[in-house]
Order: sequence, then C-alpha cells, then structure tokens
Amino acid sequence: MLTVDLNADLGESYGNYTIGNDDEIIPLISSANVACGFHASDPSVMQKTVEMIRENGSTGIGAHPAYPDLMGFGRRYMELSMPEVRSLIFYQLGALDGFCRVAGIEMNHVKPHGALYNATFEDKELAKTIADAVKDYNPKLKLMGLSNQNLVKAGEEAGLEVRHEVFADRAYEDDGTLVSRRKEGAMITDTSLAVERVIRMVREGKVESTGGRDIDIRADSICVHGDGEKALEFVKEIRKQLSENGIEIKTM
Amino acid sequence: MLTVDLNADLGESYGNYTIGNDDEIIPLISSANVACGFHASDPSVMQKTVEMIRENGSTGIGAHPAYPDLMGFGRRYMELSMPEVRSLIFYQLGALDGFCRVAGIEMNHVKPHGALYNATFEDKELAKTIADAVKDYNPKLKLMGLSNQNLVKAGEEAGLEVRHEVFADRAYEDDGTLVSRRKEGAMITDTSLAVERVIRMVREGKVESTGGRDIDIRADSICVHGDGEKALEFVKEIRKQLSENGIEIKTM
Amino acid sequence: MLTVDLNADLGESYGNYTIGNDDEIIPLISSANVACGFHASDPSVMQKTVEMIRENGSTGIGAHPAYPDLMGFGRRYMELSMPEVRSLIFYQLGALDGFCRVAGIEMNHVKPHGALYNATFEDKELAKTIADAVKDYNPKLKLMGLSNQNLVKAGEEAGLEVRHEVFADRAYEDDGTLVSRRKEGAMITDTSLAVERVIRMVREGKVESTGGRDIDIRADSICVHGDGEKALEFVKEIRKQLSENGIEIKTM
Amino acid sequence: MLTVDLNADLGESYGNYTIGNDDEIIPLISSANVACGFHASDPSVMQKTVEMIRENGSTGIGAHPAYPDLMGFGRRYMELSMPEVRSLIFYQLGALDGFCRVAGIEMNHVKPHGALYNATFEDKELAKTIADAVKDYNPKLKLMGLSNQNLVKAGEEAGLEVRHEVFADRAYEDDGTLVSRRKEGAMITDTSLAVERVIRMVREGKVESTGGRDIDIRADSICVHGDGEKALEFVKEIRKQLSENGIEIKTM
Repeated sequence: MLTVDLNADLGESYGNYTIGNDDEIIPLISSANVACGFHASDPSVMQKTVEMIRENGSTGIGAHPAYPDLMGFGRRYMELSMPEVRSLIFYQLGALDGFCRVAGIEMNHVKPHGALYNATFEDKELAKTIADAVKDYNPKLKLMGLSNQNLVKAGEEAGLEVRHEVFADRAYEDDGTLVSRRKEGAMITDTSLAVERVIRMVREGKVESTGGRDIDIRADSICVHGDGEKALEFVKEIRKQLSENGIEIKTM
Repeated sequence: MLTVDLNADLGESYGNYTIGNDDEIIPLISSANVACGFHASDPSVMQKTVEMIRENGSTGIGAHPAYPDLMGFGRRYMELSMPEVRSLIFYQLGALDGFCRVAGIEMNHVKPHGALYNATFEDKELAKTIADAVKDYNPKLKLMGLSNQNLVKAGEEAGLEVRHEVFADRAYEDDGTLVSRRKEGAMITDTSLAVERVIRMVREGKVESTGGRDIDIRADSICVHGDGEKALEFVKEIRKQLSENGIEIKTM
Repeated sequence: MLTVDLNADLGESYGNYTIGNDDEIIPLISSANVACGFHASDPSVMQKTVEMIRENGSTGIGAHPAYPDLMGFGRRYMELSMPEVRSLIFYQLGALDGFCRVAGIEMNHVKPHGALYNATFEDKELAKTIADAVKDYNPKLKLMGLSNQNLVKAGEEAGLEVRHEVFADRAYEDDGTLVSRRKEGAMITDTSLAVERVIRMVREGKVESTGGRDIDIRADSICVHGDGEKALEFVKEIRKQLSENGIEIKTM
Repeated sequence: MLTVDLNADLGESYGNYTIGNDDEIIPLISSANVACGFHASDPSVMQKTVEMIRENGSTGIGAHPAYPDLMGFGRRYMELSMPEVRSLIFYQLGALDGFCRVAGIEMNHVKPHGALYNATFEDKELAKTIADAVKDYNPKLKLMGLSNQNLVKAGEEAGLEVRHEVFADRAYEDDGTLVSRRKEGAMITDTSLAVERVIRMVREGKVESTGGRDIDIRADSICVHGDGEKALEFVKEIRKQLSENGIEIKTM
C-alpha cells in the first residue's frame, strides 16, 4: 500500500500571541514540526505543544529550528557563518529534546524553518552544515527537506534517513525548487487542483512545473498548514482524497 | 580526607561581548555553571564553553538557568508563574544538554542563576518548583543551592542529591542567607579573611554572621569567580590554602 | 456638558503575530495608548499604528511604555532600578515620537503598561520616577494613571497635567486600587452593570467597591479594550449610553 | 585651512557587558556614532552615552542604526524589506532623539552600522531607502556613508547634506569599496602607513587600491575605533599627524 506523511508547522504561538489551531491540526497530521524558540514559541508554548503531541499519540514530533529572528518569524534570510548555524541547530534540538525527555517521547525528525530551509535551495554548504549537525546531534533523526534538492541530498551523504517533502499549495520551477512567494502564481489556491497534484506526486512521482514541464518529485511527506479555518478544511479534504485513492497517511 | 567542590559561573559571553577568563578559570575549578542563553550566552558561546570543559576533562558541567533577561543579566527579579519557571528550566537544561550530547559528556548538576537563585531564599514554592523540574528532567542531576536554605531543602524533598553552596566573598545574615549586595559590608574583600572563613566553613561547618553569631553552614561547594585578574588570583590562593589545610578539591 | 475620554491599548501586534482590531477600535476611542516595542510591537507595527491614528484624525496618541518583557507581554513585575525605569521611559517615548514626527502628529499622553502600571499602586518611588521622566522628556505630555492613586499624584507633584483613569470591567478594592485578576470577582462581566458603573463614576464620582463601600473616584478617561468582537460591542454600547446620558467623548 | 571630521562608534555596551573606552575616545573625536539598541546598547547605556557626549561639549552626536541582531552585533546581513528598513530607521533615530531631547542636545548625523552600512555598497535601493528615511525623519541631519559610494549619492539625491567617510585601517578595492574583512590584506595594520594614507586622502583626494591604482576618494570624515589601548594610541597618533600637516579636526 502507498503511504505518505502529512506534516505541519506547530507550536508557533509566543507569550500572549496565538498562531494556529494546534489542537485541531495535530490529530489530522502524522508529523509535527515544532518551533524551538528562535522564530516563534517560548518555553511554556513548547511544553504545552509537546504535551499535546504526546497525548494525541500517533503524530511524530520533529524540531523546526530557525534563524534567531522572532520579529521576522524566521522568514528573513540571515548571513550566518556555518559554525553559527551548527550551534543554533544543537541549541534548538536540545531545547526541544528537553521537553520530549520530560514528556517521555522521542524526537523523530528535523525540518529547518522558513529562510533557513529556503536558503538551502541554493547553498549546498548550508545544507551540508545542517545535515552534519543533525547527524552529530542524533544520527537516528530523519532530516526533512525539499524533494530532490540539496538538503535531502546532504542528509543522504551524511548517512541520515531523509524525507522528501512536497507542497500541495505551491507551484514548482522547472528545476524542482519552489516558485518564490513574491512571484505571481506561486500559490495553488484551487483546492481540487492542489489535491490532484499531490495525489499525482505520491502515485506517479511527477508534478507539472510553472514552465509546463513534468518534473520528477518524490513525495515522502506533504506539507500542510494549520492556521485558519480554510487550512483545516484543506487538510481534511486532502486526507479524504488520499484515503479514497488508497494512500495511507503514516508518520515517516 | 576532607573534600570540597569549587564552582564558578562560566560561558557568560554573548555575541561580540566577552565576559570572564573561561579558559583560565576552568582548570582551577571542579564544577562549571554554564549559562544557557537566557541571562547570558548564545549557541556559539555554549558550544565553545562545553568543548573547553570537555577538553579540560576534570571539571564537572552544570546548567545555570536564569530568568529570561539578557539586558539585566538575570539579576533582576521577575514575577513568573510556577509553570513558567518549570518550562524555562526544561528549556535551558535541554539546550545545554544538546551541546553535552554532541560533546559526549554528561551534565552533572544544576544551579539557578542570579535573581532566580536569590528569590528562593524567601520563596519556598519557587524552590520546590525548581527542584521538581530538575527531578522531572533528570533525577540523576545534583541541585546546588545556598547552604541550609530552601533550594537544597526542596531538592532533598524531591529526592535529588543536593550540594550546599557557600560563598567566600560574601557576608552572611544571622539566618544563613547572604547579606544583600545593596548593604554595607556585603562583600568580604580581604583575601586572607575570606580564605580563612572558607577553611572554617569546610572544617568546622561554622561561619560568623554580620550579627557576630556563629551559624551552622554546610560547605559542599565554594563559589568563586573567574572574571578579572584579581578573581583568578583569589581562586589560586584559595586552592593553595585548601591544599595546605589538607582539603581536596573534587567535583561533587 | 460632561466629557470623558475613552482610551484603549493599541498597536500590540508583533511581526507575524496579530493582536487586536486596531482599525475598528480607533474610530471608537478618543485616546490610543501605543505599544513601544518592549511588551509588544515592532518598528513596522508602530509605523502602521501611528499612520492609522493620524488618518483617523480625532484620536489622541499616547505612549504605552512597559518593562522589557515581550515574552510576558509586560505583565510580569520586574525589579528594575529607578535609573533603569527612567531610561526605558525615555527610550520608548523617543521611539514613538520618531514615528509621530514623520507622521506630522504630536504625542499627547503617556500611560504605563501592565506590570509597570500596576507596580505604581504600591510603589510611590516608582510612580515618582515615571512622572519625573515624563516631565523631563516633555512637560506638555499628560500622564494617565489609576484614578486617585500614586501615579496621578506623582504627576501632579511633578507639575504634569494628569488624567485619572477608571476601568469599566474591573472591580475596585476599598482603597480604590483594582482587585487583582487572580482574585474571584476581579472582572465585571455583565455589560449593563459595567456601563452603569461607568456612568456613575463620570456623573457622581463614585463607585462601589467589592467591600460594598462607595468610594471616591475621578473619571477623566475610561479604559476599554479592542481585541475581540465582544470587546468592540462593549465599546459601542458604552458610547451609546454615554451619549444618551449627555456625556461627550473627547480626547483629554 | 583643511578640516576633517574624526568619527567613532560608541555606546556599544549592553547590560552587564562592556565594550569600548567611551570616556577616553569621546574627547579625541569630533563625531560619535551612537548605538540605538538594535545591534548593541540598551536604554541605560544610551542615556549614559548621550550624557557623556553632552558633557564633553565639542563632539557631534549621530545615530548608528542597525539590523535587529544583538547576537550578531549587527554584522550579519539580514534580508529585510524596504518598508521594514524604513521603520527601523525611524524607531532607532527616535529612540536616540529621546535621550538627546532630555540632555538638551541636537542629533547631528546618521551613519548606518555594520551589515546595514555594507549592504548599501551593492544595493542602491537600500541606500535610497535609508537616505529617504533620514530625510523624512529630519532633513537637517547629515548622512554619513562610504566615500563616493551609493549611500552618499542617495543622500545627495534626497537633498541631504552628506559626509564622505574614509577608513584609515582598511584597504580599498579598485572601485572604491572596502576590501572584505574575509580577504587577506583587508586591514592596514602598520600605523605609519595608515596615517600616511589618511593624510593623502584628505590633502589629495586619492588613495591607492589593492590593485595598485590611485583612486578618487573624498575624505570628509575619518573612521577610527575606540576599543582597546592600541586603538586609542592610533587615534592620538592620527590627531598628532593631522595637526602637524595643518589639518584641523572639526565636527562635520
């Protein structure tokens, strides 16, 4: 049977600020990428998030490390040195692991957040630095990155299990990278089209780029979102369609 | 043979800012309290600090968690809720543990920093919250607190090994708490007197308070400082005198 | 004709985080207390907020300085020295003034936020420090504080125009301070009762305390809230009732 | 008579962290670039710094705005949007102006710090954004930027008075930009050579690039440093040589 993982970014509230419907999205996904206090979250939010995931039982937990930029939600590229990146990976993985330890659950994967994720599309040294850091921290962790791109490649070279991630709501360039959000047509807003594309990615390993070409893609995990009523509806729809197409949702 | 631990706060640099002579103090002490990024330190500093401690080999490593107040160096009391304190302990212990894990060493103890340490003198609930959090994180960790006061008592009640800490350069109130730095005579500035007091604390379990009374004190660990030439000289002097008095310095 | 000011805390979003319905509340109030980046807000939010207030035209703008505690939203007491408080007042007033200068509007008042406001109930030295700082910054600024309590008294002694603030949705102790949110009955949740109390405060200068006593109160400005549909409804109701009772809403 | 300005970055301490010998450098320079709390400094440090400058009397004060990156000391490039840059300029200029207002002195100039300064070498839009923001904040402020490069050009286009800055201790590329610190030979470490180069820049408007070419340079202001004994010696030497060469040091 075909299986696929559904992942979402979680635990992104901060202090008095709330983002996302974490309690509603957790039961719908199979992997949660948990903010570690650099682009979002604080110790109280992290503890609550880890406890919610443990209580749900079936969702894998992963670290979602980011640049140290709360004001920019980790979405602004920062020119850090490789040793700086390495250290901030250790710090954030350790912090999340602290809560996992107390909750009695094990961290399953790592997925860099925002600009730190996107910067690996072009920067192989950064991808290698992240992969090596994850390996050196805990070689049993899976590394999630954009399908067929630098991060998963670096993860494989480091000897890590990797998870190729695909996006239901994003357009792809001919080279398999995501169309920048600043460009027209970056987002797939039509739900049926988005779901259809995802099903095809899982079954055929293909997706049509904005250039109209069929490109190779490997869909280990589908990224979905949990903030907003519409986002939740979309996740429910994608779950329904995956099921109807005989594809099982399963933590990677 | 009598033994005592020498501890110092370390790894308190931050970004472009340097505090302390960590490389010089590490070989002179037996326990290092490592800042975890809340009152001081950043991921790069933490990594470097943990690596220095590992290379030195004989110094025990401990977490030095604090209020989230970099601007105030964790020295300003903050009215946090008990769940907030609990979460920030987990976060900071986890973060330091991340670097220990990569370095292949084990965290040995926990000593709260600054205002978080001082607030336990009067606040038993806070002392209990910290002790329980350390216990829930890792029951093998030793908890260090002011000799005979709330924190070590709470640690014992939680079932933790505790370490009673004494201060060579601070005056004591009749009740065994430290004389506030805001008061006249809070600091013992005469080196010979300070050393003499410490030797007596270790050998006799007594210290003279500012009120002129002999009070009971248990000296498992002596707090020393590593910032400044004079501080290093003091540590060397205390080591010499302890040795001459047949007291061995040993990681707790 | 009787007049009263309606004030609300505004501009409390931060980066990717949104709090409040600022565009909806601004036209309903006569004074906006604008966050200055310490408990909430960032430079982009401040600019947008100041521009919204300028465009609305009739709402007075004030600074809402706070303890440096974004994680705690400025609601956690911090033990700062008086010189530290003085400096953080200057910093935050200056920062907001920068945006006012560019927008071509003038700052009208200052109201401390959260724990910094509440701490003045008991701490006269803090109240005086805040009042003196506002005076030294710009003696034309009005200082808003809890009706008949330390902050407005200190403002008067400093020679500032002061504004006595009352709360529609909060219960009062016999001494005129607010019942702590941690206590039962701290909030007045019944809208008609809340409005009735406010009208009486404005017309008669009296409010009933939780102890059942009628206490003196001066109502220059009524604090309302702008976050949430219910809050907006409440503001509309209070405006309607004030108008029906012949009380004009006017910037202080 | 030839005149030139000597400028240095100041007020870069933070909380418990001290950088620089501000009290010693202030009497030796004619313009101080004061950190505004984003890459360095806090409200207490800013107040003390502004007071020191006022007491000295003859040194002009300027704002030294930066990216919001205390951990990186503002030296790491951050990909901010132009409206974000505009807002952070207003915020930081306003904050410093708050202290100037209380001290009764006037801000004289603006010089972006670190990566925000360097990023203008290649990014004309950023240079224009900064220049326009300074103009919109206060058109009487002088804008300081690298001699003959984008920032001063943008300042002139915006109608601001500009100050062309030269570096005594840095090598120049053929195009007049600074040789990156990451490259060999970026720093001029020989004091006599550095001073000689500076004198020639002021008198002849020429400097030799690393490529061995004589390039045009305009020296309105010379950047010097105040941290460390050696830096102070260098400033004293440069002052002596300028004086012997009949060049007067004067606030721009």
